[in-house]
Amino acid sequence: MRNLNQDTITQAVIARFAGTPDPRLKEIMTSLVQHLHAFAREVKLTESEWLAGIDFLTATGQKCDDKRQEFILLSDTLGLSMLTVAMNNNKPAGCTEATVFGPFFLEGAPRFNLGDDVAGGARGEPCLVHGTIKALDGTPVPNALINVWQADAEGNYDVQYAHLAKPQARGILNADENGNFHFKTILAEAYPIPTDGPVGAMLKATSNHPWRPAHLHFMIDAPGYEKLITHVFREEDPYLESDVVFGVRSSLVADWKKNPDGTYDLDYDFVLNPVKQTAKV
Amino acid sequence: MRNLNQDTITQAVIARFAGTPDPRLKEIMTSLVQHLHAFAREVKLTESEWLAGIDFLTATGQKCDDKRQEFILLSDTLGLSMLTVAMNNNKPAGCTEATVFGPFFLEGAPRFNLGDDVAGGARGEPCLVHGTIKALDGTPVPNALINVWQADAEGNYDVQYAHLAKPQARGILNADENGNFHFKTILAEAYPIPTDGPVGAMLKATSNHPWRPAHLHFMIDAPGYEKLITHVFREEDPYLESDVVFGVRSSLVADWKKNPDGTYDLDYDFVLNPVKQTAKV
Ligand SMILES: [Fe+2]
Ligand SMILES: [Fe+2]
Repeated sequence: MRNLNQDTITQAVIARFAGTPDPRLKEIMTSLVQHLHAFAREVKLTESEWLAGIDFLTATGQKCDDKRQEFILLSDTLGLSMLTVAMNNNKPAGCTEATVFGPFFLEGAPRFNLGDDVAGGARGEPCLVHGTIKALDGTPVPNALINVWQADAEGNYDVQYAHLAKPQARGILNADENGNFHFKTILAEAYPIPTDGPVGAMLKATSNHPWRPAHLHFMIDAPGYEKLITHVFREEDPYLESDVVFGVRSSLVADWKKNPDGTYDLDYDFVLNPVKQTAKV
Repeated sequence: MRNLNQDTITQAVIARFAGTPDPRLKEIMTSLVQHLHAFAREVKLTESEWLAGIDFLTATGQKCDDKRQEFILLSDTLGLSMLTVAMNNNKPAGCTEATVFGPFFLEGAPRFNLGDDVAGGARGEPCLVHGTIKALDGTPVPNALINVWQADAEGNYDVQYAHLAKPQARGILNADENGNFHFKTILAEAYPIPTDGPVGAMLKATSNHPWRPAHLHFMIDAPGYEKLITHVFREEDPYLESDVVFGVRSSLVADWKKNPDGTYDLDYDFVLNPVKQTAKV
């Protein structure tokens, strides 16, 4: 444990974590140390770059509060979030695909009945959203719990406004016994992720735009099925090919129809994946 | 850029950083994404583990303030700090070795004259520290700027006390024109790194102790020489073989002699590495 050099330190650190009681934590720490050191060794990280990294991570943590999650933004923009989603949501063909959770979900959104307007005063073009929640064989999944959340016409989520008295453009409702749901809201619009923090500085320094294509977030939960966390995107959005968080799936892009009166209509069905049966011993 | 899966996303993210104007930043981002994704892929990171990681990093950043640097502690305990030091301080044999900077350095420590007591009231056994700052050929380096800092007998740095009016057990002084220095301070003692944050929780979960062997921090700067950041350790410290931050070098372990009157005496010379001459074109 003395005189560790750049060739011997990695094994010494791994040995230090060899006594970790939880085998999964031990596996994660071992792999983390190996890859973290491999990165530093590959780029021959200098001491001033190391300090810049410490400062960047510190600023990222300090930017977080109960309404801002800068580390999720960082994970999203480095593709780690979508990689994790992809690895953990390998579903049978026909199931609705998952995508990133994002940093703007809030626990305890207001409850609504079917047909209600979840916009709560948020600015935007009126839009009716409806569809059916189904199993793979097409049979309806009754009474699923639906969380929806979205940005307003300015591209902001409610939590991005400093002085909002109550949640806007987010809500919880249940599909009916036939799996059908419908609610009013506003049209989803493309928006930039917040750029006033370290992640914004990183995007700027790497010449990347901060935009996400327009989308409506869904989290759908029903007994016997895997929880589905996904978005529905809008066809022809200019950012579909360059989503800053790598979240677009073709199967999640839908035609949000414009009605003659200027309002919009989104018809989209969700197909849930049954929970895997654990083999009984 | 659509429908990225666990096999294709890494290259897509790297492509996103391909337009980074600064070539070094581009190199670092490319390598970082590759190794970060390789880690997640190797352990098959689950979504709840991903969220636990986000929460851990967030808490680490939030624990930082002007006197606490939890991300340096994390880097130290994962061996990244010592790896970086080792890669960047490959010196000719005979030069004093470098070790980790640690999180307890403070800019603007009080100035002292040779012979002064830098303890400033900190509790501990009195100790005289003296030596010479030299070049590789043994010639003295005159007037080097010396920063020293250390923990007290309780194992705390001054910044760990909430209501201390002025710095303690840290100071800045200059060696004389013959390279000699001497100052009074207190005996260095082993101490645990702070365990009331996420890093402490990580050490506990991995069954690791938080102790560092007793040491006195030095930062020594003289024109024409590389800045030296190092420690002097105490012989026979029980933690020399298990320093929580992997910083011990045998060449930095010294005999702190106990005098008949109970005070201590440390005699230690430093050998600086000349700044590399940049070839002229
Ligand atoms: Fe979003
Ligand atoms: Fe220290």
